[in-house]
Amino acid sequence: MTDRIKMQLQCPMPELDYEIITLAHGSGGKLTNALLESTVFQLFTENDGIERRHDGALIPLEGKAVFSTDSFVISPIFFPGGNIGELAVNGTVNDIAMCGGIPKYLSLAFIIEEGMKIKDLWEVMIGVKYAAGKAGVTIVTGDTKVVEKGKGDKIFINTTGIGTLHPNADIRISNIKPGDKIIVSGQIATHGIAILSVRRGLEFESDIESDTRNLNKSVEKMLDLYGKQIHLMRDPTRGGVSSTLNELARDTHLGFELEQISLPMDKQVSGACEMLGLDPLYVANEGIFLAFVEASVADVFVEDLRRQEYGQDAAIIGTVVEDHPGTVLIRSDFGGMRVVHMQVGEQLPRIC
Amino acid sequence: MTDRIKMQLQCPMPELDYEIITLAHGSGGKLTNALLESTVFQLFTENDGIERRHDGALIPLEGKAVFSTDSFVISPIFFPGGNIGELAVNGTVNDIAMCGGIPKYLSLAFIIEEGMKIKDLWEVMIGVKYAAGKAGVTIVTGDTKVVEKGKGDKIFINTTGIGTLHPNADIRISNIKPGDKIIVSGQIATHGIAILSVRRGLEFESDIESDTRNLNKSVEKMLDLYGKQIHLMRDPTRGGVSSTLNELARDTHLGFELEQISLPMDKQVSGACEMLGLDPLYVANEGIFLAFVEASVADVFVEDLRRQEYGQDAAIIGTVVEDHPGTVLIRSDFGGMRVVHMQVGEQLPRIC
Repeated sequence: MTDRIKMQLQCPMPELDYEIITLAHGSGGKLTNALLESTVFQLFTENDGIERRHDGALIPLEGKAVFSTDSFVISPIFFPGGNIGELAVNGTVNDIAMCGGIPKYLSLAFIIEEGMKIKDLWEVMIGVKYAAGKAGVTIVTGDTKVVEKGKGDKIFINTTGIGTLHPNADIRISNIKPGDKIIVSGQIATHGIAILSVRRGLEFESDIESDTRNLNKSVEKMLDLYGKQIHLMRDPTRGGVSSTLNELARDTHLGFELEQISLPMDKQVSGACEMLGLDPLYVANEGIFLAFVEASVADVFVEDLRRQEYGQDAAIIGTVVEDHPGTVLIRSDFGGMRVVHMQVGEQLPRIC
Repeated sequence: MTDRIKMQLQCPMPELDYEIITLAHGSGGKLTNALLESTVFQLFTENDGIERRHDGALIPLEGKAVFSTDSFVISPIFFPGGNIGELAVNGTVNDIAMCGGIPKYLSLAFIIEEGMKIKDLWEVMIGVKYAAGKAGVTIVTGDTKVVEKGKGDKIFINTTGIGTLHPNADIRISNIKPGDKIIVSGQIATHGIAILSVRRGLEFESDIESDTRNLNKSVEKMLDLYGKQIHLMRDPTRGGVSSTLNELARDTHLGFELEQISLPMDKQVSGACEMLGLDPLYVANEGIFLAFVEASVADVFVEDLRRQEYGQDAAIIGTVVEDHPGTVLIRSDFGGMRVVHMQVGEQLPRIC
């Protein structure tokens, strides 16, 4: 039994007079109050730092802060390995970590479609609470809106986070230089394939679970150890590894060369990609990051990363070169090189 | 011609190959990049503080910070006096001001429905830029998601803001005490009636415009002048003046007594309320605030507030009493007292 499911059992849903969300729950009046009192404020108490009585929160901050926002519109909202609540927390926590920040505070804003079941909303909130606890961040302020049936899709969540900058961090695109090693922290393409396996009309049986998880603890540790030798980090979510690397190749005017054989990937995931005709480099991830690291420390970096949470499959997957600026190449398992283009259209909408 | 319209003329929309938003614009690939490059990054340059190349922003902050989030789902997105972009900026700016904060940085996250016209998106973004400039806040990070047609409604916007705490501010519910005067900074019920006048099926002719506007400059000035003599501020948006006051009466265990005759209201607005059978105390506002102020300074506070931007109609509208704790009463124009209940259902969905 996962910790999240244990938490669900420890936080039984309160008895309410209604089972679904109505427009009146978004009115700002009595029902909005009742909904918040019986759900949000049950789960996120003042001990968690939420200021239930005001539209904002007061937070202590020192020095440079990292600030990041993301809206989550994933469909379906419950998927193998997680739900939209966990995803919304982990996504923003990870974005802050990628900037060299240590995430501290999150805001949480719901746009709920009229007719959503309260029990589903509760389960999503359990996911938020579980993920926030795991990442060590505090939900300090929030907002709830309700839209008519057919003007939303169950629930959209925005999380916006604030972190303090890690004292050793110097994460900048301009720090990337020829010779840098490109490291991935874990198996690729897991999230996208997990979502596809439950997408209406595409369902297939598998044990593949989304890799939604918080990377901040591992990243903090790696910054403790390697500081400025980490030139850049980025989590390859929407658009997958290919989009992230293509953007960076364009922005740095450098070339990247990847080794297909080094890409860590689960067998079931690579099988599903083959079956569906998908290139795993274009499939979304949630719980891995790419790091551009000083070549001289790349091997020990990977060794250390493998000892961190969620880092056991870390690998060097490529090198930064001066040749073919702006272009990402990959050497296939058979030795030939091909260009990894930026994704043009939409591979899979609403993946996060 | 308003300044916003002038800005629109100065920021002509770039020529694009497409006229509407498709799902691929939310893919994280080439089209997402192209859309952002040609719209967001045209309007919000690095001078504005946006870090286009990362998922987060680095901001300098000192001391205590105020943090607030709001999602905006108003329908229609264009309305007399503004659009959802302006509303989204002003709403969060005002929430921060209400907490005693001086708003500094905003995040901006769009959830766009497939099929939205690029020209409408551009106009919304002009609204964002105009309002941010007016309020003196910087958009530093953002996010764009696209959902299928029928799973959203043109555009939803989340803004989350950070401000520094005004050194004189001590805004706390527990500071409210018997004898305090309740002051409103301007005319009530304007926003709700402006939206109603263009709501499908309810349209009526009027010159009433939404009061969406930034209150932070006036609030900062009032905090400079009155500091801790301002016990609480709150902007009575969704649910109107009645919801805000009922919540506060409940939370303080005090009674509030209002004077109907003192409520500043535009004649057209009060006429429309009468025509539609609406009590203006329940109608949403966007550009006014309620302040609970030390009785001894209430008169001069109002005089000073009237000299501030958007403060010309400020008035004392009531008093905090020990009697009838948790209850808001109003003395009618004819002298009788009645209870102002908290709104139960939904008067007007998607008003903000």
